[in-house]
Amino acid sequence: PAPTSSISAPVPQGEPVKIRDIQSGRDTRAVAIDRVGIRDLKLPLLFHESQPPTPSAGIWRAYTNLHADARGTHMSRLVQALHRACDSFSFAAFRKLPEQAAELLGADHCMLAVEFPCFVKKSAPVSAQAGYMDYEAAFLALREKNSQRFLIRVTAPVTSLCPCSKAISARGAHNQRSHVTVTLEPNSETARVRDIAALIEANASCDLFSVLKRPDERHVTERAYDNPKFVEDIVRDIAVALSRESGVLEYRVEAENFESIHNHSAYAMLETPGFPAKILE
Amino acid sequence: PAPTSSISAPVPQGEPVKIRDIQSGRDTRAVAIDRVGIRDLKLPLLFHESQPPTPSAGIWRAYTNLHADARGTHMSRLVQALHRACDSFSFAAFRKLPEQAAELLGADHCMLAVEFPCFVKKSAPVSAQAGYMDYEAAFLALREKNSQRFLIRVTAPVTSLCPCSKAISARGAHNQRSHVTVTLEPNSETARVRDIAALIEANASCDLFSVLKRPDERHVTERAYDNPKFVEDIVRDIAVALSRESGVLEYRVEAENFESIHNHSAYAMLETPGFPAKILE
Amino acid sequence: PAPTSSISAPVPQGEPVKIRDIQSGRDTRAVAIDRVGIRDLKLPLLFHESQPPTPSAGIWRAYTNLHADARGTHMSRLVQALHRACDSFSFAAFRKLPEQAAELLGADHCMLAVEFPCFVKKSAPVSAQAGYMDYEAAFLALREKNSQRFLIRVTAPVTSLCPCSKAISARGAHNQRSHVTVTLEPNSETARVRDIAALIEANASCDLFSVLKRPDERHVTERAYDNPKFVEDIVRDIAVALSRESGVLEYRVEAENFESIHNHSAYAMLETPGFPAKILE
Amino acid sequence: PAPTSSISAPVPQGEPVKIRDIQSGRDTRAVAIDRVGIRDLKLPLLFHESQPPTPSAGIWRAYTNLHADARGTHMSRLVQALHRACDSFSFAAFRKLPEQAAELLGADHCMLAVEFPCFVKKSAPVSAQAGYMDYEAAFLALREKNSQRFLIRVTAPVTSLCPCSKAISARGAHNQRSHVTVTLEPNSETARVRDIAALIEANASCDLFSVLKRPDERHVTERAYDNPKFVEDIVRDIAVALSRESGVLEYRVEAENFESIHNHSAYAMLETPGFPAKILE
Repeated sequence: PAPTSSISAPVPQGEPVKIRDIQSGRDTRAVAIDRVGIRDLKLPLLFHESQPPTPSAGIWRAYTNLHADARGTHMSRLVQALHRACDSFSFAAFRKLPEQAAELLGADHCMLAVEFPCFVKKSAPVSAQAGYMDYEAAFLALREKNSQRFLIRVTAPVTSLCPCSKAISARGAHNQRSHVTVTLEPNSETARVRDIAALIEANASCDLFSVLKRPDERHVTERAYDNPKFVEDIVRDIAVALSRESGVLEYRVEAENFESIHNHSAYAMLETPGFPAKILE
Repeated sequence: PAPTSSISAPVPQGEPVKIRDIQSGRDTRAVAIDRVGIRDLKLPLLFHESQPPTPSAGIWRAYTNLHADARGTHMSRLVQALHRACDSFSFAAFRKLPEQAAELLGADHCMLAVEFPCFVKKSAPVSAQAGYMDYEAAFLALREKNSQRFLIRVTAPVTSLCPCSKAISARGAHNQRSHVTVTLEPNSETARVRDIAALIEANASCDLFSVLKRPDERHVTERAYDNPKFVEDIVRDIAVALSRESGVLEYRVEAENFESIHNHSAYAMLETPGFPAKILE
Repeated sequence: PAPTSSISAPVPQGEPVKIRDIQSGRDTRAVAIDRVGIRDLKLPLLFHESQPPTPSAGIWRAYTNLHADARGTHMSRLVQALHRACDSFSFAAFRKLPEQAAELLGADHCMLAVEFPCFVKKSAPVSAQAGYMDYEAAFLALREKNSQRFLIRVTAPVTSLCPCSKAISARGAHNQRSHVTVTLEPNSETARVRDIAALIEANASCDLFSVLKRPDERHVTERAYDNPKFVEDIVRDIAVALSRESGVLEYRVEAENFESIHNHSAYAMLETPGFPAKILE
Repeated sequence: PAPTSSISAPVPQGEPVKIRDIQSGRDTRAVAIDRVGIRDLKLPLLFHESQPPTPSAGIWRAYTNLHADARGTHMSRLVQALHRACDSFSFAAFRKLPEQAAELLGADHCMLAVEFPCFVKKSAPVSAQAGYMDYEAAFLALREKNSQRFLIRVTAPVTSLCPCSKAISARGAHNQRSHVTVTLEPNSETARVRDIAALIEANASCDLFSVLKRPDERHVTERAYDNPKFVEDIVRDIAVALSRESGVLEYRVEAENFESIHNHSAYAMLETPGFPAKILE
């Protein structure tokens, strides 16, 4: 009568058929595989970045490599490794997963990634009314024989206001929602999603809020108008800000404007020469 | 000796196994089915609404009903019926499909729908530079015993500029890309996607273009600023315009603003009392 | 001298501009609006359906109606109303929101809906290894002058195995992942997402698991093969099961097979005659 | 009265305001930008890979680089460059675009990419009934000072049948729809999407069809059962096949199974050491 056991039929008690382990067989094609594993596994998350922790839901992927002579990998072990992260999830906790997963698999390599909406309480700029902002966050890890590298990716929605439109028009200026993404390699486990989001927001034409009363709306309207930025300006200003942060090793910055005058986006991207893009794939 | 056998192996020449027709069997559960069929079938389209016809790609669904005593429907016949529409596609051609499909299936009821991007050449407002605009279009049909009804749905991306933001701010006004959707029942087969798109665009703060030079950008910026509209205003202005069109029987109007100051949308919808919403599902 | 000024600049301390309330103005177009409000608001959720509560993230929409003579609605109040539901979320808590929102807005009508992944711990059928299953859940409400109605919608991913393929083939049978959706009107606040998911799973060819060891994999393979079902069979069997549940007033059942032999889906839907489809929109 | 000019109001004939060229200004932040341009531009396509050409719709992106001292790029020129490709689109035609775009922009670098559904007529294996299959195709280009490289990416949906499930079960075997993606660098402009799709299909458990009659369904069921493959097997068998193709310089192979026994995917990827992954981003 447990609510979660869905099939009430009795499990047939196995005739003694041999349950062979196909995956552990040998392969003769002489082709190694760079990545094999699972993706699109959804799990609950209780995100401990500040107090109190914030509920969310994550989408995971987890891969290992496969030598040329091994037939297959044991996917269920990867799934089990990821379940460990649900109850008390943080960047520090995430950094422990690759070693655990590699051990469980008996593997050299391990790639892990999780994407989740990160909710942060934020007050309106004049009325101070509180509400949640949501940022798309991701933690990514690549473990190889003797090394591990980690990335944090944060996409913050912001307002961008077009400098050209403002300069050439007698009144008004087109503006729009934009997605600005920073992916960085931090040098410690104390890096926080909310700090990266705040750095992005500080370098947009204006930041967004879930609750705005009229005095707030006036404030953000004027602030955006006083702060025009192209996608090119946004990625450059953020690059300048990141280059001053001692806790950041490598980074990529992207800005996408969902243009209010076109049905396509404007986009810009820059990265440091050593940015490890392959961890993102 | 390859671990997996390739498909170039000869097809086993059928032992004389009976290929039974399960779908045509009788069902004893005494439960009729409202809709059964296929969805997410992608087919090429050459759309003949103006000259020259425009290429596109459509996503189809097609359902029929099923009486309580029939086990299943013959899905492959629905798929074949839809292939007839590819080469010379238009609203007039679409209107002939339900009868053909119903006949092919021996069925009373038939629901058909296709969604496709509709491309229309459009010139920039000052420089007259040409480019394609894309509108999301859909044709929908419901055939019952003695009747057929058809809907055309068009989503046009536009600019909306907030009247409140303009009124309360010393300078500027927040604006954004919006999706405005009109779904209407026309009284003839000559109704055109591009005319519905144009009616939407004429009632937004401003319309969008794929190519804008600087004098165009100035023009659209000022036009949007001079034309502030809430989502409420947009759906009302379009309702007023549609109520004057003699070719329109019933309609629904929706507007969604991807707010540039929030990370959520503002939305409004109105419809005529007799609007046949169930055709949309 | 930076080309774009930073937002650290002091906020201009408001010249005494009048902050007019445009939304509260009168409208002269004589067009009432059926729904106006917000959509795509993302908020964290701690879902209290069982112990311990499960973290998740919800996507909300909230609408009211607008009389013909009112210019606009106060969207920020809707947003604030939804924030109340985050900390201790349940179907019982959701049922209190429409009254609160209507009061906050001074409105007759109110439509609320939230979609969220619902995570349920579930053990593998033989090995009893535990893991989370995720179901797409939604709660929907329509409040009108003297009435309120609520729907719960649950989509459970399952296995479907084709009866025709099994019957006509000398060996094997094509099967695939399917999405089965039940939307029902419960007659009490104690209705649970997990019970609806379990009812769906009990009527598929087989249910899914996040962790399966080899004896489990054998079990689900044979169970699906012994239990072939068309989309038509799945919706009928669920209809029979729901018709025996005293706690269910009205319902709709849908099944979509992501066919493993086609690149399109098979689909079936049935509903009770009184099913309130307009709440779903 | 032209149907496509949407704003009937006369264009205000420009007061002599100076329309400054902000984008062409100098930038002092000393930050170069790797990529700047547009994305999500939708255009019609008439795809000339075989006779007759097939209609489709493409989604484009186009970037250039920006030196540290330039303020912005001229996005509208990129948009205009892409419009040239609509009427007679092919891989050979695509290969001419980067040079044209670079010239138009006066730029060193240029990245172009287009994604589109590619429709191919295909007959059922026994009944020979014809129907369209749709493959997701993409052409990608990177032009740098003295070099140009091109990639073709094709995703073909196929059936995969699990070798483990077949080996350990007394009857049946779980199978599902899978997406197999090959991205390759061809050494000539005559490479064809349909040939890459066919190579993928030949190495899956079975391929898909839009129309299948019962004898066809029996055929594909048995063929898949006789041809079990893990994701690992699929990428290896395709790698072996591609390594024998003289027209292929570098490649990446990916397989994703939408598991019918799980709510997550199995995934495998391998690539040649020189595969230019950065063109894909």
